[in-house]
Amino acid sequence: MDHKLFIYNTLTRKKEKFIPATENKVGLYVCGPTVYGEPHLGHIRMAISFDILFRYLLNLGYAVRYVRNITDVGHLEDEVSGEGADRIQKRARLEEIEPMEVVQKYKNLFNESFQKLNILPPSIEPQASGHIIEQQQMIRKILEKGYAYEVEGSVYFDIDAYNKEHNYGKLSGRKVEDMLTNTRTLDGQSEKRNPLDFALWKKASPEHLMRWPSEWSDGFPGWHLECSAMGTKYLGETFDIHGGGMDLMFPHHECEIAQSVAANGKEHVRYWMHNNMITIDGQKMAKSLNNFITLREMFSGNHPKLEKAYSPNAIRFFVLQAHYRSTLDFSNEALQAAEKGLKRLFSALEALKTFKPSEKSSFDIESYLVKVFEALNDDLNTPIAIAQVFNLVPYINKVKEGSESISRDDLEILKSNLNTIIFDILGLLPEEDNTNAELEKDLLELIIDLRLKARANKDYATSDIIRDKLKEVGIALKDTKDGTSWEKE
Amino acid sequence: MDHKLFIYNTLTRKKEKFIPATENKVGLYVCGPTVYGEPHLGHIRMAISFDILFRYLLNLGYAVRYVRNITDVGHLEDEVSGEGADRIQKRARLEEIEPMEVVQKYKNLFNESFQKLNILPPSIEPQASGHIIEQQQMIRKILEKGYAYEVEGSVYFDIDAYNKEHNYGKLSGRKVEDMLTNTRTLDGQSEKRNPLDFALWKKASPEHLMRWPSEWSDGFPGWHLECSAMGTKYLGETFDIHGGGMDLMFPHHECEIAQSVAANGKEHVRYWMHNNMITIDGQKMAKSLNNFITLREMFSGNHPKLEKAYSPNAIRFFVLQAHYRSTLDFSNEALQAAEKGLKRLFSALEALKTFKPSEKSSFDIESYLVKVFEALNDDLNTPIAIAQVFNLVPYINKVKEGSESISRDDLEILKSNLNTIIFDILGLLPEEDNTNAELEKDLLELIIDLRLKARANKDYATSDIIRDKLKEVGIALKDTKDGTSWEKE
Repeated sequence: MDHKLFIYNTLTRKKEKFIPATENKVGLYVCGPTVYGEPHLGHIRMAISFDILFRYLLNLGYAVRYVRNITDVGHLEDEVSGEGADRIQKRARLEEIEPMEVVQKYKNLFNESFQKLNILPPSIEPQASGHIIEQQQMIRKILEKGYAYEVEGSVYFDIDAYNKEHNYGKLSGRKVEDMLTNTRTLDGQSEKRNPLDFALWKKASPEHLMRWPSEWSDGFPGWHLECSAMGTKYLGETFDIHGGGMDLMFPHHECEIAQSVAANGKEHVRYWMHNNMITIDGQKMAKSLNNFITLREMFSGNHPKLEKAYSPNAIRFFVLQAHYRSTLDFSNEALQAAEKGLKRLFSALEALKTFKPSEKSSFDIESYLVKVFEALNDDLNTPIAIAQVFNLVPYINKVKEGSESISRDDLEILKSNLNTIIFDILGLLPEEDNTNAELEKDLLELIIDLRLKARANKDYATSDIIRDKLKEVGIALKDTKDGTSWEKE
Repeated sequence: MDHKLFIYNTLTRKKEKFIPATENKVGLYVCGPTVYGEPHLGHIRMAISFDILFRYLLNLGYAVRYVRNITDVGHLEDEVSGEGADRIQKRARLEEIEPMEVVQKYKNLFNESFQKLNILPPSIEPQASGHIIEQQQMIRKILEKGYAYEVEGSVYFDIDAYNKEHNYGKLSGRKVEDMLTNTRTLDGQSEKRNPLDFALWKKASPEHLMRWPSEWSDGFPGWHLECSAMGTKYLGETFDIHGGGMDLMFPHHECEIAQSVAANGKEHVRYWMHNNMITIDGQKMAKSLNNFITLREMFSGNHPKLEKAYSPNAIRFFVLQAHYRSTLDFSNEALQAAEKGLKRLFSALEALKTFKPSEKSSFDIESYLVKVFEALNDDLNTPIAIAQVFNLVPYINKVKEGSESISRDDLEILKSNLNTIIFDILGLLPEEDNTNAELEKDLLELIIDLRLKARANKDYATSDIIRDKLKEVGIALKDTKDGTSWEKE
């Protein structure tokens, strides 16, 4: 298989041609959500960006094993110092339920929203709490190799030992000396030899609920460890692509690399990809910043920042109209523009269905389609790909009006490529039927009025035709002294 | 809280008044599916039976923690001897994917189908492979207490040791001597001291994929152990209700009791509930018997045994029309009868909405409603409860016709109770709108024909009324030389 897909590798800061380690197979790992709150608009940037990657790789013919984890333990409140309460456990206390009930509740909500947005489920969705043994095994390996130390039942990764042979900070481009200057002021790190050291295993305080036995203590794994352990388990010691939000680059992914390299002695990931954030009023949308709009609110329009409800399709299209490495600012205008764009696109698709082919095409269809795929091959540039699709719309409209023509073969090529691009790769959903019970009722009322009028004019032939035609389509009319009612049979 | 809910306890073979161990709280554990194949009609008996229990307990005001597990490791082909290939792993080999990809795929399919059938998600849905540590801890406890032994890296439960103080077989009513007579002929049990002993931990053969380290061997837990370990973890050493299919009573639940009692030294479960099977041509419907109809086939009608497609609501109603402890035989007739019954029920509910209350009621509504709840309290007797609801339908129809009357208060009571019974407790879904694009198209065609006729008769007034009325409801007519077409605005 030879494709021309180039992806931007955060590790090298270059667009590189994507060549998987094993021919025709791709191992893809993406950092999924910590399930301690409702999914919000900010979460879908990651999910949709890597859904496009997953769909495009499948479309290119690769067998893709896509692993997206669920964090349900060890993600503490302060991500940088690795201190504070466990997010799940704090939520459990607030809701007065078991931590695993919190996990189940929010996991279900994430799945539901992702499904509405037509985000394909990953091949494996492993949970951190379900892989404690694998994490403990990795800690043992790291300890054996001298890259970690135990203090009072906790195990910390030893940055200084690691940095003698490796380069902690290579992904985010940070230098250990600079980081040290910035972190020296933080508290609660007395156990650590170096303030940058991070926990692989934390001894649980007596009130801590989520705990497992180990040779070090009854405790729980550090947040970063799960991805190293589950990535290795399901994709191997070195795998092709690792994705996640830009905000995870440091410390999460930096620590992940260090752990995996320390344990396995091999390169961890070949291509690192990071999606940018959704912003609102210029600030990253995040639960911790309390400036988020949940997906349920997006779908219902029930939030002060929302002028109306937005369909999953419109939201998805809005997200795709920025490149995944650019920020995307929330605004009603942009969402409504996406709605309008979608409408234009779907009318053009609808028009295609009725086309009568001509002898020859009056324009070069393939040259347009090639540009769509060129944009996708260029680090999944969806806004350009969409713009190229829109460049076809005027032609489609002109064929409809008769001022351009299309041959039978070209029409087939156009239809099948647009379906592939719009539905399979961009993952938009065919527009729902706008049929509603209200309209049906209105139409039937009009018909009943017309029949009444015909009877008033003694035009019984028309009145009977109406009754019979309705009967044919399953509607029975009933004349009573209060007027005519109808019923489905 | 004092309720009159009686449930049949398999352990005592009696209907017993249900009194939870902790006031107002219920711990409920149900054995969920082994996710190695598509969900079929046979699976939903368990899911719907305990969904009714869950819903009814919630309706009674209990805080219910409902744990339903997912078996994804250790369920070997021969359930009785505990020998043969791991079902997940065998499937993985067939589909040429990772065992956890099999798990994810079928877990998603189960969730999807259960959601369509309006089965509430449990509070926690733990996976066996995610609780290896907890299972290992339990093995250690059982070993310490002398109820298990290790042979060549595997650990077996010691039935003889256990039976000195306890009673293996008490749930299913089997005697150890009788069981011995029946199992003596089985092979591959040379490691066991007693043929009835069962594996807590199995040493993995070199080609076995799903394996974890332990002090005994690299291996995997025995199938029965997960429920003991996860039940204890999430519901405590003794909990209120354990449910599952009758086919799990032996050996699965019998072994579960033995393990839990051996490890915790306490009664395991207070009320055991078992649902009966769905049969087809008089035989249990099961994957292993290859006589199943998948839920996707049920929904699409695409199976030689199916005369048509059945809606999730009709299937659910069909299941509820047998008591959960009776067998339920699949037949197109019974499903179609359920469809008709549903239709009658929903027409009655629809009629209620239009009722004008009278001064007094001409019949005693509460006496009917009481009987519905009496049936539910009597071991969740849904067929009787439904029959009692149907006893109300003639009255509702007579009120509609004017030959019976209902007071304002009674109408409110009736509406709110029927909604609670039909939607909250029985979990039926409000009937979908039967509106479809087809009908809309037919109605519009009829209207356009009528307009054409009016114009042919030079009745332009009618023709204009039609155009204007349609415009009002968002339909634009377009007259061209080929006729009249319409478009939604």
